[in-house]
Amino acid sequence: MANVAEMAQAARAASQQLAVASGLSRNAALAAIASALEAQRARVLEANGLDVEEARQMVERGELDQPLLKRLDLSGSKYDATVAMVRSIIAQPEPLGQTQVATELDEGLVLYRVSVPIGVLGVIFESRPDALVQIACLCLKSGNAALLKGGREAARTNAAIAEVMTEATKGLVDMPEHWMSLLEGREEVRALLDEHDHIDLIIPRGGNEFVQYIMNNTNIPVMGHAGGICHVYVDSAADLDRAVDIVVDSKTQYVSVCNATETLLVHAEVADSALPRIAKALQDKGVELRLDERAHAILSSAFQVKRASEEDWKTEYLDYVLSVCVVDDLAAAVAHINRFGSHHTDSIVTEDGDTAKTFLSQVDSASVVHNASTRFADGFRYGLGAEVGISTNRLHSRGPVGLEGLTIYKYVLEGNGHTVASYEGDAPRSFTHKKLDAHWK
Amino acid sequence: MANVAEMAQAARAASQQLAVASGLSRNAALAAIASALEAQRARVLEANGLDVEEARQMVERGELDQPLLKRLDLSGSKYDATVAMVRSIIAQPEPLGQTQVATELDEGLVLYRVSVPIGVLGVIFESRPDALVQIACLCLKSGNAALLKGGREAARTNAAIAEVMTEATKGLVDMPEHWMSLLEGREEVRALLDEHDHIDLIIPRGGNEFVQYIMNNTNIPVMGHAGGICHVYVDSAADLDRAVDIVVDSKTQYVSVCNATETLLVHAEVADSALPRIAKALQDKGVELRLDERAHAILSSAFQVKRASEEDWKTEYLDYVLSVCVVDDLAAAVAHINRFGSHHTDSIVTEDGDTAKTFLSQVDSASVVHNASTRFADGFRYGLGAEVGISTNRLHSRGPVGLEGLTIYKYVLEGNGHTVASYEGDAPRSFTHKKLDAHWK
Repeated sequence: MANVAEMAQAARAASQQLAVASGLSRNAALAAIASALEAQRARVLEANGLDVEEARQMVERGELDQPLLKRLDLSGSKYDATVAMVRSIIAQPEPLGQTQVATELDEGLVLYRVSVPIGVLGVIFESRPDALVQIACLCLKSGNAALLKGGREAARTNAAIAEVMTEATKGLVDMPEHWMSLLEGREEVRALLDEHDHIDLIIPRGGNEFVQYIMNNTNIPVMGHAGGICHVYVDSAADLDRAVDIVVDSKTQYVSVCNATETLLVHAEVADSALPRIAKALQDKGVELRLDERAHAILSSAFQVKRASEEDWKTEYLDYVLSVCVVDDLAAAVAHINRFGSHHTDSIVTEDGDTAKTFLSQVDSASVVHNASTRFADGFRYGLGAEVGISTNRLHSRGPVGLEGLTIYKYVLEGNGHTVASYEGDAPRSFTHKKLDAHWK
Repeated sequence: MANVAEMAQAARAASQQLAVASGLSRNAALAAIASALEAQRARVLEANGLDVEEARQMVERGELDQPLLKRLDLSGSKYDATVAMVRSIIAQPEPLGQTQVATELDEGLVLYRVSVPIGVLGVIFESRPDALVQIACLCLKSGNAALLKGGREAARTNAAIAEVMTEATKGLVDMPEHWMSLLEGREEVRALLDEHDHIDLIIPRGGNEFVQYIMNNTNIPVMGHAGGICHVYVDSAADLDRAVDIVVDSKTQYVSVCNATETLLVHAEVADSALPRIAKALQDKGVELRLDERAHAILSSAFQVKRASEEDWKTEYLDYVLSVCVVDDLAAAVAHINRFGSHHTDSIVTEDGDTAKTFLSQVDSASVVHNASTRFADGFRYGLGAEVGISTNRLHSRGPVGLEGLTIYKYVLEGNGHTVASYEGDAPRSFTHKKLDAHWK
């Protein structure tokens, strides 16, 4: 299609068709996509092979990081996992047409709040081509039309996947042609951000600077997170074995993701006993420690460590680095997290239920965790099926966002000639406002 | 307080205290406000009298519209109604700390989704001073700190009310001093719009241009509606008695509000019979009709009418004016509404259930209505208690917004030492993802 404005307009029209497509039709389209991806495996992997080869050369020239190469490569079990993921989205409960609340306003006048799609989503993601499949299928299952822009390095793979998906759904019942469109150039992203009338939500998936750029350059609502500065707080009443396990998992289980922990806070009363054990376990995993004055006093004689600057408390390392701060009490831990954190995911290790309750209530983050790793904050682990991303917004959806996060509701009011005038003036009727266990259909 | 930046910062700090205030404390504060408003009636009404007197002079000089005077005047039963409204907010169900979903992720690892306040709200409203009480009390009940800016004409009344409210809550358990602050000048609104870090949501209540100005001049999310271009569609299977009642109510029950109907659509098959009856009833109420070609052909011989231009389909009259269009079928009616409407509230009059279902599904509006007036779209009538406004957003809250619309959720994860590493690698544990009927407390 010629340009982004036309694509956005076509997406809006498609979204109105898709919003009233039945769940059966949407699941049939998803099944067709899964089968087509299986049948066209060679075609997609050939395109992917070209992308991977070009990226390999760029890595050799030092123009690209090695980990990107791994994320780009779809061959082997990753392709099967991608198809399996489409089938798992089919198996998710129907997100649309669900009656959330039913209220009798008066005899014969019933109000239903019913889930509907948001409309048109613009999703901009980085180089993992399996993300294209996942996001497009989440949009389809939730009845949203999608404008998608993937990473430059995966351009051939994404184009092949998008072709397979749109061919598979062409002509199916209830399926508008432009339910998804793939954008190609960077200049198209800029144009996308101006399509306020036709795009209802932008979901950027990528690094801090990229997300900040998107947020600062559009009037369209943006759902996502710019940073993931997550904390573990080891309380004075912590079980130290658990503390070691949780800190090591939160920091090292996968360092380059947003729910990995970047700062450890330790209660002053247990710092002498806890810090050497934790430091030992982390250094065995190759983690560099950056310490405040008190932590430094405890650890510097026995470990290779650095001093932290204030900048460290605001830094998302996404690497084998951890900043460490000794705090006087729970209140100081909460204050540190609310001040320096990114309201993403923060965990407390303690055996004291009241202390945990206070932490979980007062820490102002999308996910708050007691005696478990910050790494659990993820759509799959939370049981949402797949996820389109993790939100640190304070509106609509917070934390991992699955199908429900891609819906909104409309109010449906069924009457039989009711007028407002009869509830006012002389001898007015009264509202009953009775909750019903009823579903609109 | 010196300036808006400081007020916003104080509001953020207050919001963190208010977020963990108990429901008992918040209700006690509301009860104190209700009693103080009763006790200080004379003080508030004296200030209100000065505002009303000044406004009366402005009306005489033609600088202000007459209806504003009525909205400004708090004396008589309106004052009692305002106090009663505070008590009705106390009686609303507790919006915070509600467990929306509980999921066992694995043995001993349970995830709760719990309702929490949004944070800090900036609310800008017009001259009705009872709106100040209503909005501040909704914010307090839902645990949100509020920065409020009322209309210039109500400045003395608003100042007196704000003083009474803050005095009443001073020193109460769990009540931070700056839970609400009143802004005074217009330049402060401009400054408010820049406080991205400390304000989570702006709610503007006012006319189209004003709301558009707010939406175009801030990066803070805005909840509200710029226009209320509502429709009634009289279908070929309509009961014409009902049609007359519903059109008259939707248009004339209160013309200056957003849920009043601005355009009537009539199916061509019943236009000859329906239009003269509807026109007669509307002209008895003093409604001016602006007609498309076909409606004009039917009505122009017997009624005083005008021709509509395309501009009329996009106009929110907020007055005794109605545009009328004859449409060929249901699809044309839906297309007209989705193209020219403001996605606010639209009604169909028909005795055909399938036609109604299609209309209610396909019309892309916050409220869709069958055989009832558009005027029902209102927080009180919908059983939400009071409302902070009506939203045509497609995110977070749609339609009338009550207490629930001022909340979001956080995920609370309770474990006993769980790490993500044990769910990967050799012999990984599996997630159970079992829905529980449990509540976090």
